[in-house]
Amino acid sequence: MKIKLTLSYDGTAYSGWQKQKNGCAVQEVLENAVFALTGERTSVIGSGRTDAGVHAAGQVAHFRTNSAIPPERFYLALNPLLPDDVKVIDSCAVDEDFHSVRSAKRKTYVYSVYFSRVPLPLKERYALRVDGKVDLLKMRECARLFCGEHDFKAFSSVGSSVKTTVREIYSLEVVEEEGGLKFFVTGNGFLYNMVRIIAGTLLAVGFGSLLIDDVREAFSTGNRSKAGKTLPAKGLTLSSVEYV
Amino acid sequence: MKIKLTLSYDGTAYSGWQKQKNGCAVQEVLENAVFALTGERTSVIGSGRTDAGVHAAGQVAHFRTNSAIPPERFYLALNPLLPDDVKVIDSCAVDEDFHSVRSAKRKTYVYSVYFSRVPLPLKERYALRVDGKVDLLKMRECARLFCGEHDFKAFSSVGSSVKTTVREIYSLEVVEEEGGLKFFVTGNGFLYNMVRIIAGTLLAVGFGSLLIDDVREAFSTGNRSKAGKTLPAKGLTLSSVEYV
Repeated sequence: MKIKLTLSYDGTAYSGWQKQKNGCAVQEVLENAVFALTGERTSVIGSGRTDAGVHAAGQVAHFRTNSAIPPERFYLALNPLLPDDVKVIDSCAVDEDFHSVRSAKRKTYVYSVYFSRVPLPLKERYALRVDGKVDLLKMRECARLFCGEHDFKAFSSVGSSVKTTVREIYSLEVVEEEGGLKFFVTGNGFLYNMVRIIAGTLLAVGFGSLLIDDVREAFSTGNRSKAGKTLPAKGLTLSSVEYV
Repeated sequence: MKIKLTLSYDGTAYSGWQKQKNGCAVQEVLENAVFALTGERTSVIGSGRTDAGVHAAGQVAHFRTNSAIPPERFYLALNPLLPDDVKVIDSCAVDEDFHSVRSAKRKTYVYSVYFSRVPLPLKERYALRVDGKVDLLKMRECARLFCGEHDFKAFSSVGSSVKTTVREIYSLEVVEEEGGLKFFVTGNGFLYNMVRIIAGTLLAVGFGSLLIDDVREAFSTGNRSKAGKTLPAKGLTLSSVEYV
């Protein structure tokens, strides 16, 4: 039987989603919990690899099991076996052809920043501090450039091999929220570091250190150096993954 | 010279504001930072003792110094000497008769809860999880009972000696916020555990396990057992302390 899990984690203490030689991965913690519950050593496949320090409110993963635990109760059984910073919020049985990566239709990420001259302990964990005034109109004008199907080569880091750097962004919104901003971005898929670079580009345009024309040039040339910085992981949260 | 500090802290790792034999206190961390900066061993007096695990967005404290550092720059000099979970967000010189406790005119606390069947790692740090449906109208009706000058004996824990258990609450609001509730309460002062008990009472009324008449009886009899539970510290944040 194949089971789909929806999960949330605070990425602060993790080396990211995917198991690797060094550091503790969310995937590993989940596979250990499944083993403790079912006695089965199984691979838990996530919809995408979140990087070290990136959070998730609605990551999706699937795995196979022969366990007799009802699929829709799996999450309740797993949670006591998981650390406080990783919890499963839902579970259900899925068809054999469901695949958390290949079946995903759209993903939504949120990047959070807050404005302050000094670090604020109650915000530092889930948002990036920025100091100064931004031009919201310019940021929203820039955000519109990202929407639609484009080659996002300039907005990705080298490091992963992909067949194509073309992706489609369905929406990118810049929302003001209690002393800060949130960038909500929904697309059919994202390249390595793409959301963090888009967020860095929006912010640079907001501060005037990058012009809208630079962003246009980044698109037309594919030149990474024309886009903004890759912002830190802690401000990024994988919000949801949709399959229909 | 007397300096007033406004500070924010994530209380998770602390035994509370006040220095004590066991555990690490916020006050201690601040006094050590002042010592590292000025070479002076001085008492940093907070507007009130937040309990172990309680957070602050705008705690106020004062201390004396002979340092030549400009008062309005003190906070910038202190921050590099403080841990990530304690930061000073402002500083200024105050008159000799200013006292963070005695001069305080009003304080605002926020208690946060979120609704979920399972713990959500991204919310657990600063809010209490509750499961189920609450009656907001009843909670707001109950909130009105608290406003004004009353004897709050039933809404405090024994443990601190106070001259009077009469306090005035200026406002108590129940606000819906993304999957949860926030209780904002402003008053001229609060008894030991008072905000956490008021929050517990509001929630119990919302769930129907306590009736508005029970709350009336708690007020009229001063009987602690007629009020709600003392909710956990982590949901509580000292929001601001006002002096004028």
